[in-house]
Amino acid sequence: MRILLVGAGGVGTAITRIAARRPFFDHMVVADYDLPRAEAAVAALGVRSDRFTPVRVDAADQAAVTTLLAEHRCDVLLNATDPRFVLPLFEAALAVGADYLDMAMSMSKPHPERPYEEVGVKLGDDQFAREREWAASGRLALVGMGVEPGLADVFARYAADDLFDEIDEIGIRDGANLTVDGYEFAPSFSIWTTIEECLNPPVVYERDRGWYTTEPFSEPEIFDFPEGIGPVECVNVEHEEVLLVPRWVNAGRVTFKYGLGEDFIGTLKTLHALGVDSTEPVTVRTDQGTARVSPRDVVAAVLPDPAELGDRMHGKTCAGTWVRGVKDGRPREVYLYHVVDNQWSMSEYGSQAVVWQTAVNPVIALELLANGAWKGTGVLGPEAFEPVPFMDLLVEFGSPWGMREH
Amino acid sequence: MRILLVGAGGVGTAITRIAARRPFFDHMVVADYDLPRAEAAVAALGVRSDRFTPVRVDAADQAAVTTLLAEHRCDVLLNATDPRFVLPLFEAALAVGADYLDMAMSMSKPHPERPYEEVGVKLGDDQFAREREWAASGRLALVGMGVEPGLADVFARYAADDLFDEIDEIGIRDGANLTVDGYEFAPSFSIWTTIEECLNPPVVYERDRGWYTTEPFSEPEIFDFPEGIGPVECVNVEHEEVLLVPRWVNAGRVTFKYGLGEDFIGTLKTLHALGVDSTEPVTVRTDQGTARVSPRDVVAAVLPDPAELGDRMHGKTCAGTWVRGVKDGRPREVYLYHVVDNQWSMSEYGSQAVVWQTAVNPVIALELLANGAWKGTGVLGPEAFEPVPFMDLLVEFGSPWGMREH
Repeated sequence: MRILLVGAGGVGTAITRIAARRPFFDHMVVADYDLPRAEAAVAALGVRSDRFTPVRVDAADQAAVTTLLAEHRCDVLLNATDPRFVLPLFEAALAVGADYLDMAMSMSKPHPERPYEEVGVKLGDDQFAREREWAASGRLALVGMGVEPGLADVFARYAADDLFDEIDEIGIRDGANLTVDGYEFAPSFSIWTTIEECLNPPVVYERDRGWYTTEPFSEPEIFDFPEGIGPVECVNVEHEEVLLVPRWVNAGRVTFKYGLGEDFIGTLKTLHALGVDSTEPVTVRTDQGTARVSPRDVVAAVLPDPAELGDRMHGKTCAGTWVRGVKDGRPREVYLYHVVDNQWSMSEYGSQAVVWQTAVNPVIALELLANGAWKGTGVLGPEAFEPVPFMDLLVEFGSPWGMREH
Repeated sequence: MRILLVGAGGVGTAITRIAARRPFFDHMVVADYDLPRAEAAVAALGVRSDRFTPVRVDAADQAAVTTLLAEHRCDVLLNATDPRFVLPLFEAALAVGADYLDMAMSMSKPHPERPYEEVGVKLGDDQFAREREWAASGRLALVGMGVEPGLADVFARYAADDLFDEIDEIGIRDGANLTVDGYEFAPSFSIWTTIEECLNPPVVYERDRGWYTTEPFSEPEIFDFPEGIGPVECVNVEHEEVLLVPRWVNAGRVTFKYGLGEDFIGTLKTLHALGVDSTEPVTVRTDQGTARVSPRDVVAAVLPDPAELGDRMHGKTCAGTWVRGVKDGRPREVYLYHVVDNQWSMSEYGSQAVVWQTAVNPVIALELLANGAWKGTGVLGPEAFEPVPFMDLLVEFGSPWGMREH
C-alpha cells in the first residue's frame, strides 16, 4: 500500500508517528501547503522516517493532487486537512482511481429559510451524491474515519450487532477535563473547525421525522464521563455521526452532544454576535497594503496552535457512543468509549491527546484495508464495516476502549 | 478666527454641522486623509458650506499639517482624529504658532512591571511635558475638550466653584440606553478606541496617594442615570478626566466609570482572553497573498461603522459628573449631566447622539475663545476656565445640561 497523506498539521503529524510503527504499508508521501511543516513531520520520525517523503501541495488544487497521486503511484489518499478541502481531495482520488479516507465530511449549508428547523445541504451530501461514480470505479471512499466521526460510528455498529435487539437512541457524547497551563483560552482542537461545528445548526435524526435541525447549543445535559473526567455540560452540535449512523444502523434517534462547558459556549456565542467567526472577507490595512481577510482565519492565527500545546496540557479526553434500547426483552443502556490521557500520548508519541485520538483511527482503518479484513467500494461510513477487527486492533495499538453498563 | 479641523469622521462631520450655524469664525478648513470624506462633510452643509474648504492631509505628517496651517492662515487647529495622531498635530500647531484643541489626549503606556498597580506614561503626559514651550509661545493648547473629557471637566470646576466648600470625590459617570436595530452587537462609539480605553489599566486619583492603576473593569457599581436611562453597571476605565481634574480642582478622589453593562464587559473580556483585541500583527492568508494584520483592525472592520448607525439607533446617552462633599457644613451629593436623545440629534443635525455630544463641546470652546470669554496660554484642561459661560452657551445651542441633587 502506498499512501498520500495530505495535511501535516497536528493530526497529520500524529498519523505519521502512529503509522511509522506499523509494517502494513510500503510508503507514505506527506504533503502540506507549507513544505517545512511536512519536512518537520518526517524529520521527527528519526530512524523510522525511511518510508516517508515530504512534499508541497495546495490541497485546493485538484489537478496538482491528481498529479501527485499518479507521480508517487499512491493507491490511497488520506485527507488530514480541514473540511474546506474535502471536495477537491475526494475528487482527485476518484479521478486517478485511488481509494480515499477522511476524518470530516463535505460541508453543510443551512436551510435558506428555516435554518434552525430544517436541514439544507447536509454534511457529506456532496460526497454521497457521487456514490454511483465511486461504486462504478470499484474504489472505496471511506468517509468520517477519525474518532468522531469514526470510532464512534464503529461503536454504534458494534452495539447494533452484538449488544442490542432494538435501539431507541444512539447519542455520541464527547467530553474532556483538559487544561492548558498559561493560557486564558486555548482550544484543544482547531478553532476553525470548532467554530464551524458549533455555530452551524445542530442536526438530529429521528426515525419518524428524518433529519432536522435546532438552534445552536440546544438540549443541554450533564453527561458523566468515565475514568475520572466526571460530569460535563454537553449540547447538540452539528456532527457527521448523525448523518452516517442512520444509513447503516437502525435506531429511533441519533444525536451528537459535545461537552463544551459553559465558558466555551459563552466565548463562541460572543464571537458569533460580533461576527468575527465569519469566513466572509473584510477589507483591512496590512503590511502589504489593503487586503481582504477572513475574520475567522485571524482568530485562528491569534490563538495558540492546539497541536503545539501538548507539553502544557493536562487531563484526559473521552469520545464515545451512548446507546439505549432493548436486549432479550429487557431495557439496556451502555456507553462505549475511548479515553486518551494526554500524559500518555505525549510520552509515547509526542502528540497531544485530542490530536492523537483522531489520528489513530484512520491508521487502523488503512491497516484493515491493507490486510483485507475490511473491503468495500463506493462511498461508505465506518459503520458499514465489521466493528470487531477494528476494536481489537485499537487494543493492539496500546489504547483500549471501554464499556460502561448503566 | 480661521480654523483647521483635522478629521472628517463622525465627530469631525458633526463639528462642521454645529459650527456652520454659528457666526463666530471666518473660515474652517476641513482636512482628512480621505479627501472624498472631507468633501462629503462640506457638501452636506448645503447653503451653509461657503465658510468651509475640504482638503486632504495625513495627520501623521507633521510637516504637511504645518504647511496647511500656514497656507490657510489658520489661527487654531481642532483635532478630531483618533488618539494615535495627537502628538504630530499638537506639535504642528506649536511649530506654526497656532492654538490647539483636542478631545482625547496623548496615549498612555502601562507600567512595565506593575501595570495594574502603578501608572506608567499617563494620558497627556507627553503633552504636559511641553507646557513650557506652549507658555513661552503665548499660545493655548486646550486638551481634552470634548464631552468626556471636556464638558465633564467643566462640570467638575463648576461644582468646586459654586456647589461645594469641600469635595471628597468626583466621579465621571457615562451611561446610555442606546440600541441599534438589526445588530446583535453594535458599539455606538469607535470599537478601536473603546478597546483601548477599556483594556488599558484604569487610572484612579487619590489626594494622599496620587495616581494609581487597577485591574480592568474594577469597582463595578450600578449608577442610576437620569431622564429615563435608568440603572447601568459601571466600571473603572482609563480616561483623561482622572488626569485633568486634580490639576485644577481640589478633590479627595477622582474616578471615571463607564456604563458598559454586563454584556459589553463580557464581550471585551472575551476579546481580550482570545487576544483578538491585540494590535500586534499576526500572519494570515489574504486575497493579496500572505500578509500581517492587526487583529483589532479586523474586529473594527467586521463591526458596523458607529457613525453610520444613527438611523437605526434608539435611545439616549448621558455624560456627567457626580460629586460628593460638604456645603455649608452639611454633606452634599449632586450629579451634573448632559443627555442627548438620538432622535433629536438625528432630526436636528443628522448626527447620532454619541458623536454629536462629543462634537458640540469644542465648537462652544472655540466660540468662547473667539469672543474672549475664555483666555489662556500653555497646556490647559477645560477645568482651567470659567465654567458658567460654557454651560450657558450649551443651553443656547439647544442642548441644556441638568443637575440632580441626591
